[in-house]
Amino acid sequence: MNKQYEAYKNRMRKIADINGAIAVMSWDKEVNLPKKGAAARSQQIATLSGMSHELFTAPEFGKELEALTGLNGELTPQQHRNVELTLKDYNKSTKLPTEFVIRRSQAVSEAYHAWIKAREANDFGVYKEALKKIVGFCRETAELLGYEAHPYDALLNQYEPNAKTAELTVLFKDVREQLVAFVKELKEQKPVDNAFLSKFYDKDKQWDFGLKLLQNMGYDFDAGRQDVSAHPFTINFAPTDVRVTTRIDEYDLSNMAWSCIHEGGHALYEQGLSWDEYGLPLGEACSLGIHESQARMWENNVGRSKAYWQAHFETLKATFSEQLSGVTLEDFYKGINQIAPNKIRTEADELHYHFHVLIRFEIEKALMEGEIEVEDLDKVWNEKYKEYMGIEVTNDNEGILQDIHWSHGSIGYFPTYSLGSFYAAQFFAKAKEEIPTLEDEIATGDNRKLLQWLRQNIHQYGRYYTPDELCMKITGEKLNFKYFMDYAKQKFGAIYGI
Amino acid sequence: MNKQYEAYKNRMRKIADINGAIAVMSWDKEVNLPKKGAAARSQQIATLSGMSHELFTAPEFGKELEALTGLNGELTPQQHRNVELTLKDYNKSTKLPTEFVIRRSQAVSEAYHAWIKAREANDFGVYKEALKKIVGFCRETAELLGYEAHPYDALLNQYEPNAKTAELTVLFKDVREQLVAFVKELKEQKPVDNAFLSKFYDKDKQWDFGLKLLQNMGYDFDAGRQDVSAHPFTINFAPTDVRVTTRIDEYDLSNMAWSCIHEGGHALYEQGLSWDEYGLPLGEACSLGIHESQARMWENNVGRSKAYWQAHFETLKATFSEQLSGVTLEDFYKGINQIAPNKIRTEADELHYHFHVLIRFEIEKALMEGEIEVEDLDKVWNEKYKEYMGIEVTNDNEGILQDIHWSHGSIGYFPTYSLGSFYAAQFFAKAKEEIPTLEDEIATGDNRKLLQWLRQNIHQYGRYYTPDELCMKITGEKLNFKYFMDYAKQKFGAIYGI
Repeated sequence: MNKQYEAYKNRMRKIADINGAIAVMSWDKEVNLPKKGAAARSQQIATLSGMSHELFTAPEFGKELEALTGLNGELTPQQHRNVELTLKDYNKSTKLPTEFVIRRSQAVSEAYHAWIKAREANDFGVYKEALKKIVGFCRETAELLGYEAHPYDALLNQYEPNAKTAELTVLFKDVREQLVAFVKELKEQKPVDNAFLSKFYDKDKQWDFGLKLLQNMGYDFDAGRQDVSAHPFTINFAPTDVRVTTRIDEYDLSNMAWSCIHEGGHALYEQGLSWDEYGLPLGEACSLGIHESQARMWENNVGRSKAYWQAHFETLKATFSEQLSGVTLEDFYKGINQIAPNKIRTEADELHYHFHVLIRFEIEKALMEGEIEVEDLDKVWNEKYKEYMGIEVTNDNEGILQDIHWSHGSIGYFPTYSLGSFYAAQFFAKAKEEIPTLEDEIATGDNRKLLQWLRQNIHQYGRYYTPDELCMKITGEKLNFKYFMDYAKQKFGAIYGI
Repeated sequence: MNKQYEAYKNRMRKIADINGAIAVMSWDKEVNLPKKGAAARSQQIATLSGMSHELFTAPEFGKELEALTGLNGELTPQQHRNVELTLKDYNKSTKLPTEFVIRRSQAVSEAYHAWIKAREANDFGVYKEALKKIVGFCRETAELLGYEAHPYDALLNQYEPNAKTAELTVLFKDVREQLVAFVKELKEQKPVDNAFLSKFYDKDKQWDFGLKLLQNMGYDFDAGRQDVSAHPFTINFAPTDVRVTTRIDEYDLSNMAWSCIHEGGHALYEQGLSWDEYGLPLGEACSLGIHESQARMWENNVGRSKAYWQAHFETLKATFSEQLSGVTLEDFYKGINQIAPNKIRTEADELHYHFHVLIRFEIEKALMEGEIEVEDLDKVWNEKYKEYMGIEVTNDNEGILQDIHWSHGSIGYFPTYSLGSFYAAQFFAKAKEEIPTLEDEIATGDNRKLLQWLRQNIHQYGRYYTPDELCMKITGEKLNFKYFMDYAKQKFGAIYGI
């Protein structure tokens, strides 16, 4: 191996080791931490984060990266791509001056506390000033990072490389027009019943069933484990140790089941990344949108399909015979796919979910354009909920205060949730085309070919391709909302008898 | 605060944060790690260990420490003591050249694997060459670290500051003469029965009972937690997060119960250390011997006393009514204090335990003096077991291969186990003197005064005093084996009717 490349790799792995330690401490914080241990833990994480950042942004590292990119001929295409992506990350990290990062993190900390207080008071007014500062910092961040067409591009690209505001604007226009119309049509049909999901479902039995689902998906328990936390998440210390968490609500079966499948989808991606590329861009996930596509495909395209429950409904029913007495596979399938408007994003169904994201996208974009200001944000929010979903938001906690993201400074993040679903639909359509027996196999509980397909087409590449390139390579076209609409129409049309 | 002292403190806390991360990763390794995660975890721990070592042994830090020790008048006595101890640690760390440390760690790794193989083959011959190397490295370590009277002093002092081979020789002579004679006398009496301890004791019930014992000792579950691991241990990330583990054998009640109490004793020490001194010597335990004294005092002087079980036997009996049917408090107390020779150190009773340590001490000392060589070590071992305990060791796994310590290079460690018991006896005698109602309180399940006494006399000081000084301060004399013998004679004399 080229000596300069080896030095680069060693530094990257050292950074990855530190980040791995941070991840272990973060996981432990959510899963195990005793109350009084919080202060020491925050300090330990902050110290290690500082060390990791210092190693990555060291000026001599920038020079080494510049030199390496000049070595094109001596590096393999993969090595070259690693260096190219790292240099891009390096430039991004070093564009924000340290004093700016410190000021911004103070503002984030204040905004988080203001958000908590506003939630307690159920009053957006309490949060307004802090959010104004956050938006100011986001505008400044965009200027510092730079952009070609739109300041919001710079924010988006922190999560989704190469995503463009102009393209998302078209995409969400489609969402608004096509999805709003379709959902309206569904609402005119006879509603489906899902009351059986809210019966009492014993915790331990749910836990065991969730483990079975994970196992069946192909999640490798020798390279991970599941625990309980307040909010489900997936975290990786290396592709050989990727952990998931779930939460269990004894009066809501869906909470656990689809959070297991969703996090399992994320985890399969991480477990499928290359150990040889540990610490390097090619050992990292392509983007948040692609990551989300893996979770959503398993959760919805697979995990809410009839085929999937053909394989698992009998086991579920055997486990909860009383609760599901009289419920047929058909009832169950319809129930878990009930479409009904909801004020809260995280509780939304598969279709309404994208209205929630659409609204946030429109607001974020307009904020970055200076078209609207934080001052009036609650009004804007409530109007859009009324317009797109026919929902009257009557208090701020169920409206503009519901998400934590903005208080973290994460403007530009929400769209990746929808991108995930849209990529999932497009990829899944292709997978079905390439594996004609796919649904039959899923119906027998055999997901191996799907996982193999994902490994081969997505997981193995890490960040080698951008999301655009990856989508083009797999499906022969760019992201196309049509696949999601086709999927939605076929599935929900049948369920609602359209 | 003095600026130079502040810089010193900041570096020490940074190191402590890294060491805290290593501790979290190590805890997770024992408690949670999925099989395939082991390689990445070792690498991550190694990277952080290297960073911590680098920060601590940096030449400029040595100069800063030298300068600080000259600032005597400007520092508080506590600050001065911190600096003094850190300089001592620094000098120790920098005395071993890096290439030596690397070579030694390779030898340790080889010795560990050789030990595993030898255990599989039940043949000391397989381990001999590797152990010879380890002994060679230990001899070299002693020369590099330096010593006044005896090369073994240098090794001992890695674990027990100021411990002297000459004094331990006198101490273990007492053990050999007095304890061997007393145990011989006990063996001539009617044996006590403990068969009831080996009935079936349900795992979950044992677990719950162990938690109750910990709670009752004063272990703060808001600053720690208990989990299960193959070998029980205590680990601290900060005084606000001190975790214990236990293991449960369904056919051996004693395994869980006294491991909870033992680790609880260690943990109470760590929870009692000063958070203000986090990362500094005064925030660390005095020595391994003093640490062990805390564990052993709770385990034996308290946890195997009649008073203690006056408080807890009824609860235990209510939990395991069938297993303990017909067993009186008196039977139980006698049973848990059965004295019987055993080949295995970790399974030894409270008295025989020290024969095991005595044998290891004599061997280690003689090895360092060159009086014996590894070549004949199994013979020497077996002869001593025959002589001191009347035990015929018939195979190496039950003899010289039973402990992992030497394969880690830990020569000089074993004596701290006995020191722990002897300090415990001396401290506990003093505690009873100063708290006349102590045993009565323990008998009602109230351990608060004892804990308060330990906090006040031991925990709060960290490393401010050496073990010798601490013992002198608390008891008015140096470590004196008499206290242990008095305790043993009184307790076991009564149990065995002498």
